[in-house]
Amino acid sequence: MTKSPCIICVAITGSVPRKEDNPAVPISVEEQIESTHEAFEAGASIAHCHVRLPDQTPTSDPELFGRLKEGIEKHCPGMIVQLSTGGRSGAGQARGGMLPLRPDMASLSVGSNNFPTRVYENPPDLVDWLASEMLKYDVKPEIEAFDLSHIFQAAKMQKDGRLKGPLYVQFVMGVKNAMPVDRPSFDFFRETLARIAPDAVWCAAGVGPGQVIVNEWCIETGGHCRT
Amino acid sequence: MTKSPCIICVAITGSVPRKEDNPAVPISVEEQIESTHEAFEAGASIAHCHVRLPDQTPTSDPELFGRLKEGIEKHCPGMIVQLSTGGRSGAGQARGGMLPLRPDMASLSVGSNNFPTRVYENPPDLVDWLASEMLKYDVKPEIEAFDLSHIFQAAKMQKDGRLKGPLYVQFVMGVKNAMPVDRPSFDFFRETLARIAPDAVWCAAGVGPGQVIVNEWCIETGGHCRT
Ligand SMILES: [Zn+2]
Ligand SMILES: [Zn+2]
Ligand SMILES: [Zn+2]
Ligand SMILES: [Zn+2]
Repeated sequence: MTKSPCIICVAITGSVPRKEDNPAVPISVEEQIESTHEAFEAGASIAHCHVRLPDQTPTSDPELFGRLKEGIEKHCPGMIVQLSTGGRSGAGQARGGMLPLRPDMASLSVGSNNFPTRVYENPPDLVDWLASEMLKYDVKPEIEAFDLSHIFQAAKMQKDGRLKGPLYVQFVMGVKNAMPVDRPSFDFFRETLARIAPDAVWCAAGVGPGQVIVNEWCIETGGHCRT
Repeated sequence: MTKSPCIICVAITGSVPRKEDNPAVPISVEEQIESTHEAFEAGASIAHCHVRLPDQTPTSDPELFGRLKEGIEKHCPGMIVQLSTGGRSGAGQARGGMLPLRPDMASLSVGSNNFPTRVYENPPDLVDWLASEMLKYDVKPEIEAFDLSHIFQAAKMQKDGRLKGPLYVQFVMGVKNAMPVDRPSFDFFRETLARIAPDAVWCAAGVGPGQVIVNEWCIETGGHCRT
């Protein structure tokens, strides 16, 4: 058990849900800023941000990310801004086009895995390039561990200097065709991280119906939360 | 511990090594048949087969696979022939073009992961198609588990009928950018498989310098071996 407070990271928009799925999903930058402000006042301290085009399509557009970052910094002083470099919003180096904005954090996938209908592609050279951009612009990565090998890969990248420690790792469970929401695996992820990267800090995200379950496991075992 | 004999699967050629790396690597079908025959006489009972073009490039050519299968069946009566559907030898449905030959077994990757320089792509629809071809031609898959989620995926595919049980699963360790050779992970793979697919049979492969280490772990814990 950690004695430090639980960090709540709020993923206000994500890259998948649309107004048709839930009219409350904030899509425009203005809606996102207001939604983040409410979460901030409710206790969230990291904002995990995706941006959308007017037609709701996910994008990696640095200009939109810039406006969102500026708005959150203004309305939510002290909140940590984490921008997504995820592959649902762009391809290749476009995924890191917002890193020169020097957000506090950015998400970083260090391996590949299957998603519901396709391969989530994070080729080794792109991973290394994104990591080097994060070092260059002093951006703290949140490692997205969609599988066990991704935890080992992050520890290796810390050891050889491609990532600056201590690692901040998120275990992601409940994505179809990737890791299911499974308690023994969750415990093994925690134990493995503690064994190979003892200074690492971790949180976990359960997707869809797994969200509350995984949040409870996080709180029970001293990790941080993603809502 | 199992009381059944240890099954030795011999990967005579693989898709990567060339004569320049080791002059003993069998490349032509004739060399492969003789090499398999020696392994068979030394006690191997599964032949894991890749085929190569005359310039040593890996291929999925059904004609070459057919000649190899026929030669092994003639020279090594009773040996189990396992043909590779791996992604280093072809792309898309070409990877399963040899399944109508009705080999005893074929390898099947059920998820994606990183390889040393690229993404090992096994998109969900291709995985499902390969699995359905194996059902159609009565080919027993060897599930190649390059990561933890692949074990869960195989169990799910057995449960919903896409794979016929009992599963035969191989844990693969030591591929750069995928799972390292790690004993606690090896043990967790075994435990997880026993928990979610209790009737499954397993073996494990360590790549390169990890081969002997992983073989020893397999023998010690009652699994089968890949050489
Ligand atoms: Zn995200
Ligand atoms: Zn506000
Ligand atoms: Zn192979
Ligand atoms: Zn012979």
